[in-house]
Amino acid sequence: MLEPLGDPLAKLVFELSKLPGIGEKTAGRLAYHILRQDRAYAASLADALLRAKDTLKLCSSCFSFTDQELCSICRSPQRDAGLICVVERPSDVRAVEAAGAFRGAYHVLHGVLSPMDGVGPEELKLRELVARMSSGSAPVREVILAMNPSVDGDVTSLYVSRLLKPLGVKVSRLALGLPVGGALEYTDRQTLGKALENRVELQAT
Amino acid sequence: MLEPLGDPLAKLVFELSKLPGIGEKTAGRLAYHILRQDRAYAASLADALLRAKDTLKLCSSCFSFTDQELCSICRSPQRDAGLICVVERPSDVRAVEAAGAFRGAYHVLHGVLSPMDGVGPEELKLRELVARMSSGSAPVREVILAMNPSVDGDVTSLYVSRLLKPLGVKVSRLALGLPVGGALEYTDRQTLGKALENRVELQAT
Repeated sequence: MLEPLGDPLAKLVFELSKLPGIGEKTAGRLAYHILRQDRAYAASLADALLRAKDTLKLCSSCFSFTDQELCSICRSPQRDAGLICVVERPSDVRAVEAAGAFRGAYHVLHGVLSPMDGVGPEELKLRELVARMSSGSAPVREVILAMNPSVDGDVTSLYVSRLLKPLGVKVSRLALGLPVGGALEYTDRQTLGKALENRVELQAT
Repeated sequence: MLEPLGDPLAKLVFELSKLPGIGEKTAGRLAYHILRQDRAYAASLADALLRAKDTLKLCSSCFSFTDQELCSICRSPQRDAGLICVVERPSDVRAVEAAGAFRGAYHVLHGVLSPMDGVGPEELKLRELVARMSSGSAPVREVILAMNPSVDGDVTSLYVSRLLKPLGVKVSRLALGLPVGGALEYTDRQTLGKALENRVELQAT
């Protein structure tokens, strides 16, 4: 799709279609929706875009997005700074927070090791993760690896665990198994294999 | 979802999630994507939003969006003004144009008749359609109804055809039948019924 010159509608569709997962058809639908709304909506979306881009930077401790030096999680005295959940991307912090089951801190790697794409350890926030093990007010008791269950995620998990183990910190990773609400019948072989392998013994009560 | 107060990231996600078909998860994904790009992208999207909203209005002849008095299709001497394709929404103009098979003009009704939702003939650009039959430089030879094949679309088609017939203009509607590339096996009963009903005789060659 070429950059449109004069037409403001084509230009809006063009800009929207650069978003991930938004093709030209969806971009057209979004553009027409925006045109049907009050001007206030376009204005507040435009403002939110620029304000987010201008004020957000990476937290100096965990490297998720924040508009301050430290993000709200790293600043919070309610969170357990001795427990660090390592994730690939800032959006993964959002996902884990939404589960509501984690009260520790995070560390965002900003990617996974991927020799094919030229991403080595230097491209990730790994040195900063190691530095957090020794510095910081509270000693780190456990690091939970929460990389995606993909080949690159698994390789990265292995790399990070080998990096941290010599420092005497406990390293764990998220359980693999059946998704809640899923059905055995529709579960892929590998997931079912992991669910069997990681089976949990039930205690007699 | 409540309006977020301080956090620029939450605010951007909130504004994006107002778009149709964009839930909170997708909005989060889009927001993180935007934050990973150069500031120039956020700026050009914000600019496109405001410029589209500020400059686009309805074409005074066909009522699709344009930044001038008449849209580029109504202005074009290449287009056949004697052939008018009537559609529900401005986005339908885009869809028909993309097919590349129509060289006439358009008329956007801005909705369909829907007594349940309180949309009567007065809410649509029907009087303006009737006015185009008599005024205009070229006489209108044919009106092609291209409303969606839904109950409301069918009712509106019938209404418009009864409105135009007394004026002596030919009124047609888009063919219903099998979608190209579709399979008989997966075609719903009604579509298959229409495909049978509207079958086209093959000429011996």
